[in-house]
Amino acid sequence: MAELAPSQLSDLLDRGDEAAIRALFDSLSESDRTHAASRLPTLELGRLLDILGSEAAAGLIEDLPLSQAAAAIEEVEPRAAAEILEALSSDDRADVMAEVYEDDRRAILAAAPVETAREVRALLAYDADTAGGLMRTEYVSLRSGQTVSAAIDQIRRGADAYAGYAIQYLYAVDEQGRLEGVVPLRALLLARGEARLSELMVREPVVFGVEDPLEALAQVFRKQGFLGAPVVDWDGRLVGVVERAAVDDASIDVAESDHMKSLGIASGEELRSMPPMERSRRRLAWLSVNIVLNLFAASVVAAYQDTLQAAIALAVFLPIISDMSGCSGNQAVAVSLRELSLGVVRPSELAHVLSKEAFVGVLNGLALGSMLALLAWAWQGSATLGVVVGLALAVNTLLAVSIGGTTPLVIKRLGWDPALASGPILTTLTDVCGFFLTLQLATSLLL
Amino acid sequence: MAELAPSQLSDLLDRGDEAAIRALFDSLSESDRTHAASRLPTLELGRLLDILGSEAAAGLIEDLPLSQAAAAIEEVEPRAAAEILEALSSDDRADVMAEVYEDDRRAILAAAPVETAREVRALLAYDADTAGGLMRTEYVSLRSGQTVSAAIDQIRRGADAYAGYAIQYLYAVDEQGRLEGVVPLRALLLARGEARLSELMVREPVVFGVEDPLEALAQVFRKQGFLGAPVVDWDGRLVGVVERAAVDDASIDVAESDHMKSLGIASGEELRSMPPMERSRRRLAWLSVNIVLNLFAASVVAAYQDTLQAAIALAVFLPIISDMSGCSGNQAVAVSLRELSLGVVRPSELAHVLSKEAFVGVLNGLALGSMLALLAWAWQGSATLGVVVGLALAVNTLLAVSIGGTTPLVIKRLGWDPALASGPILTTLTDVCGFFLTLQLATSLLL
Repeated sequence: MAELAPSQLSDLLDRGDEAAIRALFDSLSESDRTHAASRLPTLELGRLLDILGSEAAAGLIEDLPLSQAAAAIEEVEPRAAAEILEALSSDDRADVMAEVYEDDRRAILAAAPVETAREVRALLAYDADTAGGLMRTEYVSLRSGQTVSAAIDQIRRGADAYAGYAIQYLYAVDEQGRLEGVVPLRALLLARGEARLSELMVREPVVFGVEDPLEALAQVFRKQGFLGAPVVDWDGRLVGVVERAAVDDASIDVAESDHMKSLGIASGEELRSMPPMERSRRRLAWLSVNIVLNLFAASVVAAYQDTLQAAIALAVFLPIISDMSGCSGNQAVAVSLRELSLGVVRPSELAHVLSKEAFVGVLNGLALGSMLALLAWAWQGSATLGVVVGLALAVNTLLAVSIGGTTPLVIKRLGWDPALASGPILTTLTDVCGFFLTLQLATSLLL
Repeated sequence: MAELAPSQLSDLLDRGDEAAIRALFDSLSESDRTHAASRLPTLELGRLLDILGSEAAAGLIEDLPLSQAAAAIEEVEPRAAAEILEALSSDDRADVMAEVYEDDRRAILAAAPVETAREVRALLAYDADTAGGLMRTEYVSLRSGQTVSAAIDQIRRGADAYAGYAIQYLYAVDEQGRLEGVVPLRALLLARGEARLSELMVREPVVFGVEDPLEALAQVFRKQGFLGAPVVDWDGRLVGVVERAAVDDASIDVAESDHMKSLGIASGEELRSMPPMERSRRRLAWLSVNIVLNLFAASVVAAYQDTLQAAIALAVFLPIISDMSGCSGNQAVAVSLRELSLGVVRPSELAHVLSKEAFVGVLNGLALGSMLALLAWAWQGSATLGVVVGLALAVNTLLAVSIGGTTPLVIKRLGWDPALASGPILTTLTDVCGFFLTLQLATSLLL
């Protein structure tokens, strides 16, 4: 397959050559389609979706970053958008519509089949990262009193409706629609035709409530082999099915978004297809806070200008101490975030983390401190200067890993997002401590 | 369930009170088990596995971080370890054994059933993050000439063997064991008993080669709804099945490991249960490189000591410019890493990324530069100083985002790991540029 120039698609759209566009798209590989489409400005991407038709458009939307897909849908005429919506699976529908602006959403749902609109609205009522937000509403539910052959007939009749989904389980419910048990497809296959589902079904299966959070779901699936689990509302009525795949995908998104947040990209998502002003705003949101935080550290340096004046070589080492301490601290932050997510450490266990980090902090402090001391001595020819910067880095490394290791736990207990807030708090504290240590030691030892 | 003190389990192990330990474990929730066990020193954890018995031990091992589970297995007497191994699913077996030291592995496999040992050795031959390394070897393969009822009988006979796994597909092979097609369980359910598999099977299904990389698998599953895909060797013979769940879990691990690497934790995994010396070593590996990198930046400052001497206030702002530029650059790095993994940008597209980042760089440069300029002016009472530091930060922000955005692409093209190498390269370059800009501007404008 030839490499496609992103502009090529754009040109065809300008010329409005619909046939050529469809032909080009058919000729492209999955990844080339995503790549080419993701490069289009929102308006052109909307036009593309329109031209491709609901099926192909839905396929493309599943591959595009969510925010981009939603923005493009807003550009599509509501009736056409509703058709694309119809071609998506119920959980993708809700995800995309959640990102679409209120007004467009209302228009699109108004143009969609009543049943679809009702389902989407129902799903939108739940937070995205809960069982309700992650579930899909296509599933096969039967009365537990039915026989196997009756069940098989019902599946056969509904075969087309389920065609898109790999059904693994049937769900047995009572007359109020309350879940009674789960029947694995294989059990159905191996059972006698006249057997009743109530004889085959797994009673008291794993069940999620609509508001169960992603973490809880992920933990269950990490442990259990099964591929999906039923979701019930407050009355125990079956309302949907959460698939392992949906939970895993959501977990991946959360991990990526946390990484972005940890670098100060507010909202945890940025794509270069977004308008520059918005990208700038998202990044500045935190950078401008950070510049103020930096002033705390800077004011420490300012307080010691006379010391610096007297021993100007110190100015050479302040950035090193700041950078190295920040790195050491961020490593400890990362380990704590990981252990929190693995469940091997809990927000209350500050003492445990402190004891563990302190040990590593002493080892690395000694190693890095003596390295810097020797470098400074050899370079600036002053043993005392070496002692000052080396000792400062050694102590500050210990402080940095201790602060870094515990900060995520504290932030979590405060109910904030540790991935978001740990970094800036850490570096500010380590800079303040690092500069103070260096300059105070210098004042007492060098002058 | 009462909160369990991690020491409690330890005490019981010391007293060797096996009955109490089993009773305690039964009373614990999933997450409490993992939490308590993950706190034990390797030796005690090994004892615990021994006491729990193969089934419960296998269950615990699936929840523990891989490296910790492997270390504990090494402490278990080979015959008992082999029983635990037997209780794991084939893909977990290979993952754990891959982490176990050569000698222990040989001993354990020698004590394991021949068939199991053979399978594990076969799986270990593949890289962990390839189809071969991720596949499981339990699957149902049948001759395409067989009838549906014959197939159902075979499944019924093997029912116990497959009990642990949710079979979704049967695989039709020829007499050489070469894959001919895939039969969804549902198709089997809906078919006439005398129909032949060859009539139902999906021909030319999605198939992976044993050496296909994780990214390729993830891309297919992200797009396709199915729950597993067959894996064939070079001769097209069916050798295993990759499940969506295995691919998703591996993707999550890779994302976490990349985040760790980006912070300079070599090997991408650290847990506080590891020996302090090893944790120290893993972190120092990169910190000691970083301290040397810092010298490049420091030497720029050293070259301008006279300028600093003359305008000591500059020393207050150097760390700010260094930190802010590093942050701006790292944001661009994160966006590029994300876009690379999403496939919306390719390593060759430097110009595209540059053009996109330059725009944001100018906007943020102007915003941050003027902020710092005003702060410096107000604080130090010198407009010229404000101009110097503001201009330096503005220009360096532009450089930082341009370098940050493109570095991951370049590193990827060089065949290195962008997550690992981007950060240090970036901050070194931005510090060098930032310090040079500030001090050179100061030399020309202030002196």
